[in-house]
Amino acid sequence: MVESRHRGIAAIVDADGHVVAHWGDFEKPVFARSAIKSLQAIPLVESGAADAFDVSDEELALACSSHNGESRHTTLVSSWLDRIGCTPADLECGTHLPYDEATAHALIRAGEAPGTVHNNCSGKHTGMLATARHKGEPTAGYIRFDHPVQQRILGVLEQMTAQDLSNAPWGVDGCGIPTIAIPLGSLALAMARLADPQDLPDRRAEAIVRIRRAWGKHPYLIGGRGTFDTRMMEAIDGQALIKIGAEGVMCAVLPELGLGIALKIEDGASRAAGIAMAALLRQCKVLTESRRDELADLTHPAITNRVGLSVGEVRPASGWPE
Amino acid sequence: MVESRHRGIAAIVDADGHVVAHWGDFEKPVFARSAIKSLQAIPLVESGAADAFDVSDEELALACSSHNGESRHTTLVSSWLDRIGCTPADLECGTHLPYDEATAHALIRAGEAPGTVHNNCSGKHTGMLATARHKGEPTAGYIRFDHPVQQRILGVLEQMTAQDLSNAPWGVDGCGIPTIAIPLGSLALAMARLADPQDLPDRRAEAIVRIRRAWGKHPYLIGGRGTFDTRMMEAIDGQALIKIGAEGVMCAVLPELGLGIALKIEDGASRAAGIAMAALLRQCKVLTESRRDELADLTHPAITNRVGLSVGEVRPASGWPE
Repeated sequence: MVESRHRGIAAIVDADGHVVAHWGDFEKPVFARSAIKSLQAIPLVESGAADAFDVSDEELALACSSHNGESRHTTLVSSWLDRIGCTPADLECGTHLPYDEATAHALIRAGEAPGTVHNNCSGKHTGMLATARHKGEPTAGYIRFDHPVQQRILGVLEQMTAQDLSNAPWGVDGCGIPTIAIPLGSLALAMARLADPQDLPDRRAEAIVRIRRAWGKHPYLIGGRGTFDTRMMEAIDGQALIKIGAEGVMCAVLPELGLGIALKIEDGASRAAGIAMAALLRQCKVLTESRRDELADLTHPAITNRVGLSVGEVRPASGWPE
Repeated sequence: MVESRHRGIAAIVDADGHVVAHWGDFEKPVFARSAIKSLQAIPLVESGAADAFDVSDEELALACSSHNGESRHTTLVSSWLDRIGCTPADLECGTHLPYDEATAHALIRAGEAPGTVHNNCSGKHTGMLATARHKGEPTAGYIRFDHPVQQRILGVLEQMTAQDLSNAPWGVDGCGIPTIAIPLGSLALAMARLADPQDLPDRRAEAIVRIRRAWGKHPYLIGGRGTFDTRMMEAIDGQALIKIGAEGVMCAVLPELGLGIALKIEDGASRAAGIAMAALLRQCKVLTESRRDELADLTHPAITNRVGLSVGEVRPASGWPE
């Protein structure tokens, strides 16, 4: 018996804006959340801040990440903050326990509260601070809609999605920055342009190639232990760059095929987003059948109960590709 | 902008089986999960086990609970286990960290692993062990479908739902016991019969009145700190007995109106179940408008981000009652 069902919309688009495949109403605006951190990192590179501050590929990957807050993540964020003359107190992202359970439990055992560097968005925020520093803008308030840091990102989003977003609804993301409503198909287009930036201005195309390299080279920094993004990217070896966002949003960039993917689970469930994405990656053949079966715990995971018994599974519905 | 949407089905039924109101396909079978712990507790009373073991109203409430694992819950479960000659090792429900965050963190800080008594279902399981003990049945394997404990419950479910469940699909619940697929409207009927048991055999009606009393008298034991069930029952002062289950199932018993309510969120989201139930309680007028507004954090809670800012809300959709 199927106990629960998630519904979703998805689009696969090429860099010319052709919709290669779609499921559901792909023109529906969605808050892209953390699935577009790669786009939000473009000004960090384009502005010259990344060069001026000697930003490494690891740091650039963290700017694109929703990390687990493991020491491997937080150590890098801390040293990057230090190098740009900032401290964790400058991060306006708030705090939460690290997503990585072992790290969270270690903090609790030590009687320590999590800091802003543990916030899964601390890399993105450090990138924003670096840009503000480099441009000589005030760092305080860099998360506000009208701050140059956010306005610059809005401009990038408009160009990459080919949408006038000046009147688009926007909300405040979990980490405090604006999140803009973008039609899902336009989000997939932006991902396709990351995959194939050749028609973009040189400076933007160069920034994208650098971001893509960092994203693909350091999958562990994008998420961390056990996360879908990290494990799937490691498994398919750079054939897709993947990023989850809150509320069931997920994006992927397929450089070899020049395609972008965006999907949104209607009810916002993250448990469905990865499984839906895995099925789309299989559809695009970047995930082979044998690799999909090896990654069963990501592509159609068993549900185990409190006594460790497998009692069901989460799987793509018939009608969803594959 | 509405970012995410949950869909649900619901039925409000009276003890004669009249469907007073419904939303969606209310004949759809659902796994009732923990929403029917009150029904599962009937054999504990009917068998004479509750009398033989001097089971208190507090213990009976715990048999109907999905508790937070706070010391108030676990102390009672432990002493009850002891009184029936069992130990936590006899509980076959498995373990998980207490749902109550402060209790969970205290365990982690102390370097202790959670025990079976912390499992939110430990009260229900202790009730099952008590019944097996009283009937002279083996306690080992009491969670198995073919064990007399579970077969007795199956019989109760058939009678209370007026359904032949002999061929109904069944799954294994999080705590290891069978969970049976029951049409949602029939689940609401069973709740209505709890509300108004006058047409049931005397012995069953008496058991139900006793269970209802325990359920209504000890809302804190049904859930615990901050839970929907506990807070809503405390707020409406026994006018509805409420119980959540996994995967977005929720049931309510309205004794004064003789009505039963059952609902299932299609995608299994618990964040939607309470909000949907609150709207139905408002529809039935057991939740007044002013009380609903006082309980805003249960009935249409704000979504706050990592910096503590209110950035949205979860609320009933238009078309859902109210």
